[in-house]
Amino acid sequence: MRATILRGPRDVAVEEVPDPVLPGPAGIIVTVERTAICGSDLHLYHDAPTGIGIHLGHEAIGTVAEAGSEVHSVKVGDRVLVSGVIGCGTCGPCLAGQPNVCLQGKSAAFGTIPDLPGGQAEAMAVPFADTFALPIPEGVADEEAVLLTDILPTGYVGAVRADIKPGATVVVVGLGPVGFMALQCAALFGPSRIFAIDMVPERLARAAAFGAEPIDARDAPGSAQVLEKTKGRGAESVIEAVGADATVLDAISCAATGGTVSVVGVNLAMALPFPMALVFLKSLTLRAVFAPVPGTWSALVPLVQAGRFSLAETFTHRMGLGDAAEAYELFDSRRDGVLKVLLDPKG
Amino acid sequence: MRATILRGPRDVAVEEVPDPVLPGPAGIIVTVERTAICGSDLHLYHDAPTGIGIHLGHEAIGTVAEAGSEVHSVKVGDRVLVSGVIGCGTCGPCLAGQPNVCLQGKSAAFGTIPDLPGGQAEAMAVPFADTFALPIPEGVADEEAVLLTDILPTGYVGAVRADIKPGATVVVVGLGPVGFMALQCAALFGPSRIFAIDMVPERLARAAAFGAEPIDARDAPGSAQVLEKTKGRGAESVIEAVGADATVLDAISCAATGGTVSVVGVNLAMALPFPMALVFLKSLTLRAVFAPVPGTWSALVPLVQAGRFSLAETFTHRMGLGDAAEAYELFDSRRDGVLKVLLDPKG
Amino acid sequence: MRATILRGPRDVAVEEVPDPVLPGPAGIIVTVERTAICGSDLHLYHDAPTGIGIHLGHEAIGTVAEAGSEVHSVKVGDRVLVSGVIGCGTCGPCLAGQPNVCLQGKSAAFGTIPDLPGGQAEAMAVPFADTFALPIPEGVADEEAVLLTDILPTGYVGAVRADIKPGATVVVVGLGPVGFMALQCAALFGPSRIFAIDMVPERLARAAAFGAEPIDARDAPGSAQVLEKTKGRGAESVIEAVGADATVLDAISCAATGGTVSVVGVNLAMALPFPMALVFLKSLTLRAVFAPVPGTWSALVPLVQAGRFSLAETFTHRMGLGDAAEAYELFDSRRDGVLKVLLDPKG
Amino acid sequence: MRATILRGPRDVAVEEVPDPVLPGPAGIIVTVERTAICGSDLHLYHDAPTGIGIHLGHEAIGTVAEAGSEVHSVKVGDRVLVSGVIGCGTCGPCLAGQPNVCLQGKSAAFGTIPDLPGGQAEAMAVPFADTFALPIPEGVADEEAVLLTDILPTGYVGAVRADIKPGATVVVVGLGPVGFMALQCAALFGPSRIFAIDMVPERLARAAAFGAEPIDARDAPGSAQVLEKTKGRGAESVIEAVGADATVLDAISCAATGGTVSVVGVNLAMALPFPMALVFLKSLTLRAVFAPVPGTWSALVPLVQAGRFSLAETFTHRMGLGDAAEAYELFDSRRDGVLKVLLDPKG
Repeated sequence: MRATILRGPRDVAVEEVPDPVLPGPAGIIVTVERTAICGSDLHLYHDAPTGIGIHLGHEAIGTVAEAGSEVHSVKVGDRVLVSGVIGCGTCGPCLAGQPNVCLQGKSAAFGTIPDLPGGQAEAMAVPFADTFALPIPEGVADEEAVLLTDILPTGYVGAVRADIKPGATVVVVGLGPVGFMALQCAALFGPSRIFAIDMVPERLARAAAFGAEPIDARDAPGSAQVLEKTKGRGAESVIEAVGADATVLDAISCAATGGTVSVVGVNLAMALPFPMALVFLKSLTLRAVFAPVPGTWSALVPLVQAGRFSLAETFTHRMGLGDAAEAYELFDSRRDGVLKVLLDPKG
Repeated sequence: MRATILRGPRDVAVEEVPDPVLPGPAGIIVTVERTAICGSDLHLYHDAPTGIGIHLGHEAIGTVAEAGSEVHSVKVGDRVLVSGVIGCGTCGPCLAGQPNVCLQGKSAAFGTIPDLPGGQAEAMAVPFADTFALPIPEGVADEEAVLLTDILPTGYVGAVRADIKPGATVVVVGLGPVGFMALQCAALFGPSRIFAIDMVPERLARAAAFGAEPIDARDAPGSAQVLEKTKGRGAESVIEAVGADATVLDAISCAATGGTVSVVGVNLAMALPFPMALVFLKSLTLRAVFAPVPGTWSALVPLVQAGRFSLAETFTHRMGLGDAAEAYELFDSRRDGVLKVLLDPKG
Repeated sequence: MRATILRGPRDVAVEEVPDPVLPGPAGIIVTVERTAICGSDLHLYHDAPTGIGIHLGHEAIGTVAEAGSEVHSVKVGDRVLVSGVIGCGTCGPCLAGQPNVCLQGKSAAFGTIPDLPGGQAEAMAVPFADTFALPIPEGVADEEAVLLTDILPTGYVGAVRADIKPGATVVVVGLGPVGFMALQCAALFGPSRIFAIDMVPERLARAAAFGAEPIDARDAPGSAQVLEKTKGRGAESVIEAVGADATVLDAISCAATGGTVSVVGVNLAMALPFPMALVFLKSLTLRAVFAPVPGTWSALVPLVQAGRFSLAETFTHRMGLGDAAEAYELFDSRRDGVLKVLLDPKG
Repeated sequence: MRATILRGPRDVAVEEVPDPVLPGPAGIIVTVERTAICGSDLHLYHDAPTGIGIHLGHEAIGTVAEAGSEVHSVKVGDRVLVSGVIGCGTCGPCLAGQPNVCLQGKSAAFGTIPDLPGGQAEAMAVPFADTFALPIPEGVADEEAVLLTDILPTGYVGAVRADIKPGATVVVVGLGPVGFMALQCAALFGPSRIFAIDMVPERLARAAAFGAEPIDARDAPGSAQVLEKTKGRGAESVIEAVGADATVLDAISCAATGGTVSVVGVNLAMALPFPMALVFLKSLTLRAVFAPVPGTWSALVPLVQAGRFSLAETFTHRMGLGDAAEAYELFDSRRDGVLKVLLDPKG
């Protein structure tokens, strides 16, 4: 089959690779029908030496082509969405849908390590399918299903972990795909105001259309503008959805005393210059999270079914899998109004 | 009257100063009867240039000598304990006992800024006494009352904010006075194991006597020993009670995936080299807090009254106010088994 | 001045009474400008013998005519809204805005006991004004301010106490004024579906316009319809906003296993025939609440200011205070599409 | 094999029955080694017509004699404890250890319905063993393991659902086996006082030895004594562990304003005369629960291993399975200081 392979810095290619094999009696093989590129894929794309040869991709939906004897919740022919994050599949947290805190330490995303080939391919192997795959629910469109494999859950958990109270002021730092999901999920918790910070006009406009107050960080640091608009108080809840050191620090500066900063942007710094003094003097809480995808589905699926989100505009570009190299380059460039790119393995 | 003044690096002196005056109709004057030196006083003691001339001290109890016309909860002659931390006194959080998140931004500790003379003195002025002073409750000994002005509340809030669940494994990093309070407060939440890390044998022995498992950080980094004793998993809840950069980092290394690190040690770094990668990969929560003292009294007073804490050994040294210079030097040295020093303004 | 007096069963009258006097140095006198009739007033209206002679009303706004020496947050000439529920004014819960759990046991609503004359009058006395009165915030219309004195807080607390999780199914039983507030507040917590049960077509239509799924209880018991629409599962969160025995029981029947039933309708039964078996077998939580009005303002005021509620249609009838008898009769009848009646003391 | 059968009112017998068969590929057969009689078994014992012919018992431990092909967490020869409560075994709540809120509505206790033969027998069939059986952990004694099958989890969940805050006053109504577990679990949450109500002197003495304040309900109603000892305020958290109508009502009377009443006694009334007026005026929360046994093990096992409970005195009588009729009669009588009876299937 064909799969998207990381060959070097900013160099991906679609190559022929062996077909996946069933990962044990609790696993399935999925014929991928739609797959997407995630902002976190760009970490590998930019920093390839750590991952040359990896089969990329952790956002995919498709049809079950083969199922192990111990799989009960799905069967061959079912259309499923696959959790981007998995774990050992048998410990308490995994069974409860939180593979990010797997007790066996086996938490991982597809397409980020050699042992777990990814979903930007014609097919993929999914272990412990009862836990990590979900039949696409009635009333959920295919593109919505792709969003349920990672970024909608990530944005949701980011919002949950931001401790948003009714009437609160919220800031979302970064309006890329995850930030746009986080923005919509923040609204589930009844805030009175949501400030949305970015530098890309289309992204600010999209947030404004959703009811947020846009802040253009090209004019002045986002935190400075938030503090001005809140009379120096800041926001009780801040969601950081970029992952750069500068945006993490700006998010902390946005926070009001007693507030919470929830980081969902992937930041892998080991020595970020961190203002403990502010965290102490403002009595802050700071969190990051590797998203517990399956654990969010019981909340998110009925919300998607009820039309509570505006997901239709998330995918700005749809391309064939064969164009993956171009798709990565486009997504990385942020040009042409790109927000998120969907790939079709048939193309 | 006499008060303890910061004159320079490692230089404090007891000097004659003007008597305090009533801080408005909601305030009181307290004749101080017992006052203590706090670990956080050592920040000023070590780094005097930021505070030369300050009247030190934020832990004091005594008798009301004068009361403004709008004070209702205490009257002249009442014996009271005074919150070490105050705020505007009128906003919602202040009235709810959380001056650390004062909406007017007036959160401060006595004896740390020129405008708020401290309690290591013969008398002190306390604004908004209905909120920030408490009649010493029946069944609370004087030395226990001193502990209720700051460090028991600080340890308690540190434990609250560590999200300790029944059956959890807890680590307390640092067994100074605040750490010893945090250790006891952690036990309120039903953990199965508490690891207690320090380098001072007496402090480790005190923790062991309380039922904790002592870890001597002179042997190996505390986190390394915690990970070994927990089969690599770490602790769900970690309380850092030192405030050094190294101990904050070690506390983060102690945390299990999904865990919480609650920092109560005062760390005023603006660029601590912070491992965001670990926080992300382990889905951690990190908190610090400037203690909301009055808000803790409704929980802590009945616990003290019921004898649920072992507080008797906290004060290892009792001296006269006139010996404040010597007391600071002793406390800073950690020699002679000193844990905490109590001062008597009559001495 | 003129005040609305309960004279007997279904018999109220506007009579001349002595002007109110300042209730101590922390109190104020308010010249009432708008006041409303609450569903809970009908308990007295129907069951007068327990309250003959009471000056009715606990929902009022107006201008401060006189202020005691210890009042700081408002001054003569300020326009204020008054909490319908008050307490001792000095205990911790009262200061934190929760007079419903006053430690002195002095929790009470204006206009329900002889000692606390109500607001359906030309003026009213408000003790502890710093706690129980609020300057009408910028951006809050007068009629919105009236709703903030009781029913919007009551509906809000009812929703808070229903433990609504994102994606949940919610039922609101009863779409009177409080139910309509509860419905809107339930939406703050991100449910996927809200079922709204009533028997009055206009009320069902209003709920449907707000996005809820109307259930007409004239067709079949509300719970039977809810169970049918949820495939037998029921709703995780149920808010009862009527107070009749039958509706409390129906609310319990609506609840899914593990769910919560939050009762905000006033039910004063001492022997309601209660299905403990269902509560046990379904592992339910049941709550009622006497609303902690001031404690809700920090959440609700910014939401009102941000236009997050649809409050404009709440008052269907506006009358003069002199027409109070007619207003009570109309409100009690539920005819003419009446939802809530506003009274103007100048009329 | 031999099993305990309900033959009629107060009539049980040990009879020969067919051996159990493997309940599907995810199930196991357990050779029972210890089994206990639970207070809830007495509901059937007293009211046999609803359950004649049932194989009784839901508290059992033993050795795996046979395991289906899909069982991974235990194998033949392992010693296991069995959850007294099970569900469908595959829905989200079941996998998360909460079969009491099984989405398929299959929540049930062994030995209470014909389809689920119980554990007071020489062997029993356990479906979905990965979820509902647990290898007896190192450091857990056999009798402790039996307590982990039902009553320690039930007492624990009762305490969790009582919303106990540090420093709170707690009441436990009823000091039978479940009440004694609830008492110990309440202590995990840091209360300052625990009042323990019963009428049996040995039970009161046992509670007092544990640190609780005993209240003898033969002297006066328990709630009257609690109110007197708390100056009229009552207790913030009340756990009812009897299940009689009178004790549920007394528990509600014990509760302070804003408090929570957590019912763990099995009460199957459909028309308990319920004081909604008190629930409303005191802003109470009332809960009952069908215990989510497996979900409690991650908290309780490490606590048992750490010796945090006093479990040794729970079983006052140990008898052979062949003496089951006598054992039921003894347990029901409450004579001879009986608290709980353990049965050995070899006897």
